[in-house]
Amino acid sequence: MAYNVGILGATGAVGQEIIRLLHEREFPIAELRLLASARSAGKTQSFGDKSWTIQEATPESFAGLDVCIFSAGGDQSKLFAAEAVKRGCIVVDNSSAFRQDPNVPLVIPEINPDSVDNHQGILANPNCSTAISLMGLYPLHKAFGLKSFIASTYQAVSGSGAGGLIELDQQAHAWAEGGEMKQEVYPHQIAFNLIPHVDKFLDDGYTKEEMKMLNEGRKIMGIDDLRVTCTCVRVPVFRAHSISISAEFEKPVTVEAAREAVRNFEGAELVDNPANAEYPMPLNYSEVVPCGVGRIRKDLVFDNGLALWVTGDQLWKGAALNAIQIAELLHKKGKLSS
Amino acid sequence: MAYNVGILGATGAVGQEIIRLLHEREFPIAELRLLASARSAGKTQSFGDKSWTIQEATPESFAGLDVCIFSAGGDQSKLFAAEAVKRGCIVVDNSSAFRQDPNVPLVIPEINPDSVDNHQGILANPNCSTAISLMGLYPLHKAFGLKSFIASTYQAVSGSGAGGLIELDQQAHAWAEGGEMKQEVYPHQIAFNLIPHVDKFLDDGYTKEEMKMLNEGRKIMGIDDLRVTCTCVRVPVFRAHSISISAEFEKPVTVEAAREAVRNFEGAELVDNPANAEYPMPLNYSEVVPCGVGRIRKDLVFDNGLALWVTGDQLWKGAALNAIQIAELLHKKGKLSS
Repeated sequence: MAYNVGILGATGAVGQEIIRLLHEREFPIAELRLLASARSAGKTQSFGDKSWTIQEATPESFAGLDVCIFSAGGDQSKLFAAEAVKRGCIVVDNSSAFRQDPNVPLVIPEINPDSVDNHQGILANPNCSTAISLMGLYPLHKAFGLKSFIASTYQAVSGSGAGGLIELDQQAHAWAEGGEMKQEVYPHQIAFNLIPHVDKFLDDGYTKEEMKMLNEGRKIMGIDDLRVTCTCVRVPVFRAHSISISAEFEKPVTVEAAREAVRNFEGAELVDNPANAEYPMPLNYSEVVPCGVGRIRKDLVFDNGLALWVTGDQLWKGAALNAIQIAELLHKKGKLSS
Repeated sequence: MAYNVGILGATGAVGQEIIRLLHEREFPIAELRLLASARSAGKTQSFGDKSWTIQEATPESFAGLDVCIFSAGGDQSKLFAAEAVKRGCIVVDNSSAFRQDPNVPLVIPEINPDSVDNHQGILANPNCSTAISLMGLYPLHKAFGLKSFIASTYQAVSGSGAGGLIELDQQAHAWAEGGEMKQEVYPHQIAFNLIPHVDKFLDDGYTKEEMKMLNEGRKIMGIDDLRVTCTCVRVPVFRAHSISISAEFEKPVTVEAAREAVRNFEGAELVDNPANAEYPMPLNYSEVVPCGVGRIRKDLVFDNGLALWVTGDQLWKGAALNAIQIAELLHKKGKLSS
C-alpha cells in the first residue's frame, strides 16, 4: 500500500522539511507531486538521489492525489482546499485558515488522535508555538486538569519561513563583517535584538499569534473554558521555539508527578537536571523529533501551579513533522485510500 | 560642594559605565578613586581627557572617601563594606550581599526614595531584572494594587559582565567567519541559542536570580505578601534586558489607566503603539536612561490583570545608573557629607 502524496508550497522552509521527513520516516509513497506558485513551476527539487519538477498549483493538480500537505499560507489554502477535497484528495493544512472551523479537526496525534475520525476532507495542523507548548502542557493536563496558563514565547526566525532564516543569517554576517544589514521580513533588526511582535495585531493589543495559543489550545485539548495569556516574542535563534509557561491546575500538583507524566508522554522528552545544567535549549532541539520539557517546579503564584520550559523544532513538531504524523495516523487507521 | 567618590570594581563592565555616567550626569566629584583587585592595580583608566591609576583595594583605600560604589561581586562587598563604613564612607553596593539585610535599604530612587533616610552606612542596589521589571510594575501597583505577577526574562549577556559581552561577540564572529567558538562564561553556547539558567540553582528548582524578583520586589515596593513566579533566560542580546509580565491587581484595571500611570512615572517611557510596530526593544533601550514599557493589554488569566513588556539597559538602570541615582538622592537630601 502506497499513496500519491502532494505538497503545496514545496519550495518553502516547511515544504523542504516535509520532503525530507517523508523520506526519512519512510512514508509509503507511490508518487510525490510537488506543487507551488507559477513562479517556482518548472524548477527542480531534489532529495537524496531523487528529484522532482515542481508543478504550478491549479485545481486540476490535486486529481489523483490521496493526500496533500498544504504549506503555502492561508490564502493558498482557502483557494485550493475545497478543490482538492472535491477531487478525492485529503488535505492536511499547515495554515491557520481552517483551524477554528468546527468541521475541521485540529490535530496533534499524541493528544487527540481520535479527532481525525470525523474529518470531512480537511485536517488542520496547529500553530507552531501552540503545538510545542502543548507537548509539555498536555501530559500535565492529563495528570492534574489544566485550568489556565500564562506563556511567554521565544520564537525562532524559521517561523517566518525561509525569509526569516535568511534575514537573521544576513544580519549576523553583516554585523560580523561590517556590512549593511538588510531588513525585509521583520519591521526591526532581529540580530542581537528581540521583537515582541509575531503576526498581526488585533484591536485588544494581542497579536493573532498570541490568541492561537488560547483558541487552538482549547480545541486540541478539549478544554472549553481554558484561560490563556500569551506574549509572543521573536528572538535571534534559527529554528527551535521555546516557551516559558506558568500553569494552574484543578488538582494538587507535585514536581515528581509532573516529571513522571512528561516522561511517560510520547513526543516529549524530560530534560530536567539543573544540577548538571541540563534543560532544553534551541540548539539541542533543532532537527529533533520530540520536544524537550524541563525547569519543572512549583509555581509560586498559582496554588496548584507548575512552571515549566518547553523547546521544540519549529519546522518539525511546529509544522512539517506534525503534518506528516497526521498523514501517518490516517494511514495507520486505514483512513487513507490509495 | 563636591565629594570624594570611590568605585570598587572599576575595571568591570558596570564599573566602566559608572565612570562614564558620573561624568555625563555631572555628579559633583572632588576626587575619583578607582579601586580594584591587585591584578588591575597600577593600570590606567581614562574617560574623556581624564585618567586615573587604579589602586588595589585594601581596608585603608576607603579612608577619606565620602561614598564608594561597590561593583566587584558579593565576596568583595562582604570583605570591604564594613571597613569602608568604619572609615566614614557610605557604600552603595551593587552585589546581592546585603539586599535582604533589614538594616540595609534596597533602593530604586523613583520608587522608595525615603528608604535611604535610615541607612546605617550601606545602601543596596537591586538586581538588574528586578529593577527593570519594577519600572513597569510600580506605577501599575500605585494605580491598582499589585497582588502577584509572573515574569519571564530575556536577559542580555552584559548581565554576566565584560566576560559575557566578549563571549557573545566572540561566538558570533566565530559563527560568521567559520572559527571556533570559545565557551568560558556560560555552560552552553549563547550565540543563536537560549539558556534558561541565570545564577545558581536552588533545591526547589528555581535559580537565585529568579527568587530575587520575589524577594527584592517585596522589599522595594513594600508588599510583604506579593507572590511572584519568575523564569530567567539568557538570550543572545548584548546589553538590555526585557521582561514579559502578567500581573494581578486588587482593583479593576483598564488599559488606558495603566498607560496613563506608566506615562506619569518618572524613569519609565510608554512605547505602546502596536499599529506602528512600536514597542520597547533591546536595541532601542541600550544606553538609554528610562526603561521602556509597552504591549500593555488586559491579561486573560487574571480577573484584574494586565500583561506588559518592559525593556531597560542592564548596565544602566540595572546597575550603574541606579547606583549613581542613589548617590544623587543622598546628595539631594543632604545626606552625603563632603
